[in-house]
Amino acid sequence: MSSILYGVSVGPGDPGLLTVNAVETIRSCSTICYPVRKAGEKSTALEIVRGAVSLDGKGIEELVFSMDPDDSVRRASEKVALDRLCGILDSGKDVAMVVLGDIGVYSTYMYIDEAVRQRGYETRIIAGIPSFVYGASKAGIPLMLGNESFCVIPMAKDSSDRLDEALKTMDNIVVMKAFKSMEKIADLMESNGVPLEKATVISNLGMGGEYIGPIVRGRDYGYFTTVIIKRCSRI
Amino acid sequence: MSSILYGVSVGPGDPGLLTVNAVETIRSCSTICYPVRKAGEKSTALEIVRGAVSLDGKGIEELVFSMDPDDSVRRASEKVALDRLCGILDSGKDVAMVVLGDIGVYSTYMYIDEAVRQRGYETRIIAGIPSFVYGASKAGIPLMLGNESFCVIPMAKDSSDRLDEALKTMDNIVVMKAFKSMEKIADLMESNGVPLEKATVISNLGMGGEYIGPIVRGRDYGYFTTVIIKRCSRI
Repeated sequence: MSSILYGVSVGPGDPGLLTVNAVETIRSCSTICYPVRKAGEKSTALEIVRGAVSLDGKGIEELVFSMDPDDSVRRASEKVALDRLCGILDSGKDVAMVVLGDIGVYSTYMYIDEAVRQRGYETRIIAGIPSFVYGASKAGIPLMLGNESFCVIPMAKDSSDRLDEALKTMDNIVVMKAFKSMEKIADLMESNGVPLEKATVISNLGMGGEYIGPIVRGRDYGYFTTVIIKRCSRI
Repeated sequence: MSSILYGVSVGPGDPGLLTVNAVETIRSCSTICYPVRKAGEKSTALEIVRGAVSLDGKGIEELVFSMDPDDSVRRASEKVALDRLCGILDSGKDVAMVVLGDIGVYSTYMYIDEAVRQRGYETRIIAGIPSFVYGASKAGIPLMLGNESFCVIPMAKDSSDRLDEALKTMDNIVVMKAFKSMEKIADLMESNGVPLEKATVISNLGMGGEYIGPIVRGRDYGYFTTVIIKRCSRI
């Protein structure tokens, strides 16, 4: 049981956003795994890795973690995937599981990590660049300065109250999963007296339909859309 | 005026936390600058870079940005530093200015970036790993899961109200600059009914006095101390 499962964060898209540690960890592991929801699904994380590291000679394994609404289907799928993963570790091979963005930021990888640890294996996490950190760098704006507070609010059906609250109390607000909610975000900014110019939309970075700019009401935004609202800052 | 100033985030300590982009940018620049507050001050960012990239043959320049309380002293120091920096750019050399952590997270580099852009030069920012992202990865805990909210509160004299508010409304809270405020943080958690076990202290990571563990009242913590409070999460 001396093999190790590495959860390797690969950043939000550009292969150059992998850290040196991530590259070296992937190089040192003989097996690369990537989690998918359905067999045969494309893995963006794996594509990013291929742009940064040669995977020649390595075993590459798809692991299916179903998101089926039926609990028993999900659990059966998880058991198969974990058995496979732990079988590779038992054979003496270190495994790198590659994950988009940073593992700490909205990744379901942590559930896998926890389950594998509960089975008695050692796991380690390699940090990566979160998408909102990259977005701010490309937009040329800081996430927070001086003594300011900062928050991340993911937009969902019931997120309006949370964003309303944040617009009253937080200095900097990152709104994630914002692509369908831009009118709602603009409405809440205006009802809280926050000028729309305080917002920078970052959409589909490095992909088709990339957009970095102000909120434009009525415009369509790509699926990967984040809004950075700097409520108080000069820059 | 075709030379470029790169603001290069080098991560919170381990040279392996530089991204591939950061390493390549530093390699491609003939001059490396580092900001200090006083002439001759040690630069942790530069030390980290030396662990990741050979700087042989490159010009290495200290730039003093005084933090003197006297406005005129600060401005005079800034003018000297910016003149020097822009002089290097004018001579046709690209410059990498190296910055600890991620530039978007509490770095004064953004003021330099803004001033250099105002003088008509092109600047680019290279994203890095923020300290709290690395801390979470070392502690083996996620910053946020599913649809949870997340915030960063830097502790300062008047931060108790902000933390009190966050402990009522946010799912995950990172408290930065926490080393002197642990009793206050513990008090606010308890008065808000948040068990102390929900907090993980991350102190002096990779340095002397490293500590990753629960809040222990009465204990002394290192200068670089962050607390991650997972108010709601199972893991």
